Formats: sequence, structure tokens, C-alpha cells
Amino acid sequence: MQIEPQAFDRVLSSMCTKPHPVAREAAERFLATNPGDPGTYPTISALEEEAIATLGEIAGLEEPAGYVASGGTEANIQAVRIARERAQTRRPTVVMPASAHFSFRKAADVLGVDLCVVPTDDSHRIDLEAVRSAVDADTAMVVAVAGTTEYGRVDPIPELGEIARSVDALLHVDAAWGGFVLPFTDFEWHFGHAPVDTMTIDPHKMGQAAVPAGGLLVRDSDLLDELAVDTPYLESTSQATLTGTRSGAGVASAVAAMEELWPAGYRSQYVRSQNNAEWLADVLEKRGYEVVEPTLPLVAADVPESTFEALRAEGWRISRTATGELRVVCMPHVSREMLASFVADLDRLEVRASVPIPSD
Amino acid sequence: MQIEPQAFDRVLSSMCTKPHPVAREAAERFLATNPGDPGTYPTISALEEEAIATLGEIAGLEEPAGYVASGGTEANIQAVRIARERAQTRRPTVVMPASAHFSFRKAADVLGVDLCVVPTDDSHRIDLEAVRSAVDADTAMVVAVAGTTEYGRVDPIPELGEIARSVDALLHVDAAWGGFVLPFTDFEWHFGHAPVDTMTIDPHKMGQAAVPAGGLLVRDSDLLDELAVDTPYLESTSQATLTGTRSGAGVASAVAAMEELWPAGYRSQYVRSQNNAEWLADVLEKRGYEVVEPTLPLVAADVPESTFEALRAEGWRISRTATGELRVVCMPHVSREMLASFVADLDRLEVRASVPIPSD
Repeated sequence: MQIEPQAFDRVLSSMCTKPHPVAREAAERFLATNPGDPGTYPTISALEEEAIATLGEIAGLEEPAGYVASGGTEANIQAVRIARERAQTRRPTVVMPASAHFSFRKAADVLGVDLCVVPTDDSHRIDLEAVRSAVDADTAMVVAVAGTTEYGRVDPIPELGEIARSVDALLHVDAAWGGFVLPFTDFEWHFGHAPVDTMTIDPHKMGQAAVPAGGLLVRDSDLLDELAVDTPYLESTSQATLTGTRSGAGVASAVAAMEELWPAGYRSQYVRSQNNAEWLADVLEKRGYEVVEPTLPLVAADVPESTFEALRAEGWRISRTATGELRVVCMPHVSREMLASFVADLDRLEVRASVPIPSD
Repeated sequence: MQIEPQAFDRVLSSMCTKPHPVAREAAERFLATNPGDPGTYPTISALEEEAIATLGEIAGLEEPAGYVASGGTEANIQAVRIARERAQTRRPTVVMPASAHFSFRKAADVLGVDLCVVPTDDSHRIDLEAVRSAVDADTAMVVAVAGTTEYGRVDPIPELGEIARSVDALLHVDAAWGGFVLPFTDFEWHFGHAPVDTMTIDPHKMGQAAVPAGGLLVRDSDLLDELAVDTPYLESTSQATLTGTRSGAGVASAVAAMEELWPAGYRSQYVRSQNNAEWLADVLEKRGYEVVEPTLPLVAADVPESTFEALRAEGWRISRTATGELRVVCMPHVSREMLASFVADLDRLEVRASVPIPSD
């Protein structure tokens, strides 16, 4: 099988990135291990505990509990599952912003819970008044996003914690993407800032680990117990994860990346990525596009569809928001040179796209 | 992070194995790709189609449809989810043998379906008469296992197909482990042998791919549509997988392994593994243990618990059945020399364990 994957040099659409070299090396070293079978693979199982300890440190969690999941989707599904098990109502509902990741819709479908989708406000954050109106006795969980998929926004998490508490619902923070940049900002987003119960935080996004390495953190290990299904085996009597066999490569890469980069390496990466995002926003604004200012390293702008398609045709992997704006994620592999080259192509193709077809 | 995983030279408990060298190389080459995002990573997405095509060939499926899952647990959960969506009843039930993998219990918990667990007979296969009594109008799915976890048994799949059909239930075959050895036996286990609707078949077990690479196959792509959740995104309008971001390394390693080994390499590996299992069974029988004859490369024997613990203390990674028998899985990494060394230690430790403590 001789085929090569495409290079990263035109990837602006992904919330994943090239694994850091130490993460890649650890992934390769632990490729043939399975933390889902601790009796057979004790070393990687111990490493998973280290990963959770460090994730806990990043997320302000005093007694870290959780596990390294296949990704943010599994972590979000499991968080909803915890809430469903804890709910006292026959029709548990999850209240979430329209900006929340698609995985909550998948969770609702898989787990048989209802979703109440609340609009965002002009700043693309959840509308707090709408949340207050939406929650009721059936609310099992309120979802807050720390770094939204489309605009990189951070919801008002302490306030959402109050609202969740007021109806005895759990508060889940989806920091899958934001978790590794937010420590270097003034946002209040984690277990130390608010009554957060569960959190998604993915090493394989801004954490620069290899896929698959998502993270589920819980304030109290009792919450994890809601996921435990008894096994009939003698060696391991229960299992809380959604998958069975799991990737040791992902876990090892997460440990190695965090060991190398937390906190100084992640801090300087955040600064670089945020500077890149602000540079791009500025450049696009000067060209007359309407830009959604990046509060985190993610830029959206109303580039026309024709230009967007022309850029894709030239190999740029870009994506759009649900309302059709160009969306660029400034991940660690995205350099200023890449963005400059992108803007040069944008200029060239925008002109071409806007030249009217001569009428005969 | 300097730590190394333990070697494979004493692992007899795992249904996973060392990835084949071509599989490892492909995994490393595609480590930084995500088939869950086909717009950004088109190469690995195309490779996934190849994987499904070959898995279909192995499993007698004329129009291959399915996807490379995180593992057999996800595939089994998704199969139950398909059955739940298709069920016409308010209380869908899954009828399964006691020998079925733990993941079906997890599926029932996650998906809110009932389980009806049917005993196995003296040959450790599902009791057909018990199945006939158990199925009813609420039965959404009948589970058949092609290579059970504890004894490597193959259920009577064509008969189970008839029974499932008789109550309009789906038939799911869990060939997670057995799927890559069964083509070389006389067992009737796949889509060409019986009215099988869905199947689990894992490249990262006997297929010698890297974790994570499980497989879900469906007879008809309509079945996969039951899993599709609509997304609000412009680029991809629905997603059938349970996870979101997925490992390109796993998918690429599956393609590379199957390209290299199907069918001749897998055939000779089956012969080697089965010979090893039969050798071990014979050796244990001669020493007076009661042995469950291996119909596939998996041996169980009533080695006493004290000896079992002593062997574990010497670094052998072994496991036991629910009734306490030693269980050895003869995976590709298990050589005759390993087994001979194991038996030598068994002899030495069995003598020591059975020496009575002298009374004063």
C-alpha cells in the first residue's frame, strides 16, 4: 500500500493537528498496547492515570477522575449518559446552545434523551435568559461550550453553573478544543471557576497528541460509576468506557505531549496561534469582509461561496459555518506563511470570481 | 517519557496481537489523519472504502457496506442500535448466548434495550431449543457468536438465521475475533452462509492490524442509515459512526494488513495458530488437566487457581473463563517456543503449589 496522506500545508479546517514529535514517538512506541485490558497491559494503564492527573491539573480539578476516550464525541456522549443515569425524571432533557457540537445530537439519539436547543446571542455565546426560561424539572444537564466549533466562543460558564444548580441539573463543559488554550486567557471555564460536574477536553486537538486521545473528566468518581457496567469476567469486574479495546498509542501520546508542553509549550503555542488568528482577521477586515473577531484562535469571515469553492479547488482544506462563513482554525501546524499564502490565493481567486461573465 | 511497554513474549490472554510490520508502517504513515472528516482527509476516507470492500470479501458480502469502527464493542453497540431503530415493538429485546461478549451488556445499558440471555450447551455453543423458546414479538435481534471469547466456539449460524427470520428479528454475527480464521475452516458463519444482517469483524484482532480497527458490516446500506444522525454542517450532512474524530492509523493499518495477508498469509497463520492450540491442548491433557478442545485457536483447561496465580506472578499474561479455567489465545505472536516455555513453568509451579505444607 504505497499511497501517502496529503500534507498538512493547506489544512485550515481541522481541529486536529500534526502530533508533536514526542507524541508521535510515544504513539509508535505504544502502538501495540490496549489500556482497555489493564491485566494484560499494565504499563499503559498506569500511564492513563498520569494523563488524567495532568488533564485535571490543566482543568482545575483537585481530585482528577476520568479517562482517555476515543475522542470528544465519546466524552460528550458519556457525559450525557451520566446525566441520564442521575436524572430523577422520566424524560431527561439536555439544555444546550445551538453552537454546541453535533455530538450532543448524536448522544440524544443514542441515549434516548430529549434536547432543548437554546439560541446564541449576537456574540455567538449561549443566550443566558433563554437558558433560564428553558430549564425545568426535566433538565438533567446544561451544556456549556468553552471554545465553540464554529466561532471559538466561550459561554458564560459560572452563570450557567448557577442555572444548572437551580434545577438540580449537572453542568457539562465541552472544552474539547478550548481546553489547551484557555489556561492562558482570562476566561472562567473550568472546575475551579464554576460548579462544573463533567468536562470534555481532548489531547488530540490543541493538546498535540495523536488521534485517538479525547478526555472525559468528572468532579467526583461517583459520576464515573454511573457508567460502569458489570462484567462477568474475573479479572475486571466493571468497565466505564464506551469502547472496549482502546488505543495505547493515543494514551501514550497524550502523556508525552503534556509532559513536554504543559504549561510553557502550550502557552507559547497559544500566543502564536492567537496572533495568527488576529493577523488573519485584520487582513480580511481590511479587504472588506465582515469578520467574527477571534476570541480564541479561530476566525470566521463572509467570504463568498464562489471564492470558497475556488480555494478548495486549489487544495485548501477549509470549512464553513452553518451560515456559510469561511472558518479557519489556527492550529499549531498553521504558520503565518501558510496564512499569507492563503490570503494571496484568496485575493487572486476573489478577483477572478467576481469578474462578470461578458455578455455577447 | 522514557517508559517502555512490556514485551509480547508472555502475552497469552489478549485477542489483539503485534501489528504486522506493513500494518505498523501504514499506521505510522497515516497517524495524523482522521477519516471522520472526509472533506479534510480524502485519502484516508478512500482507503476506508477499500477496507470495507476487503472485509466484505472475507465475510461473503456481495455489496459491502459498513465502516471501520473503534473496535468490536462499538460495532456490537451499533448493531444493537440498528436493531432498536428497526424494531416494531416498544420493548425491543436482544436474544444472546451467555457466551456473547460483554459489549452486548454495555449496549443494552447504553441503548435502553432488554437482554434475554440464553444458556450454552455442553459444547459451549448457544442452545438452539432455548433460543426457540426465548424469541417472541419483542425480539429485535438474535446474536450469534463466530469465535466466542472464552472457548472460541462457533454458534449454529444458519439455524439461528432461521429463528431470527421467524420472528422478524435481525441476525447479528459477532465474528470480531473469528472472522480472520473462519474462512479457512468448514464453519458456516457469514453473509453467504446464512441470512446474516449485521456483522462485527475486527482487523485489529486476528487481522493483525493496529488498534483501533474494528469492523461493522451490514448486508444492506439501508441498515447503516438507521445510524445516521443529521448534522447541521454544510460539508457532511450525516454521520453513522459512534465516534466523531477517528484514527486514520487504524484504517490504514487494516488496509495494509489485508492487502498483504488476505488470503494466503491469514491462511498459513490460521494453520500455525490452530496447530499451536492443538499442541497445547494435547500437552495439557497428557498432564491430566480437563481441556476444552480447541475448535479455533483458543484453549481452556482446569489449571488450579494457585498455579494460575503463580504463573501470573512470573509475568505470564493469562486469563480465566468465568468458571475459572485457564484460557490461552493462540494469536499470531504466540509461538511454539513461547508455549513450551509456558508449559515448563506450569510444570515447575504446579509441583511447588501442590507440595503440602509440612506439619510440625
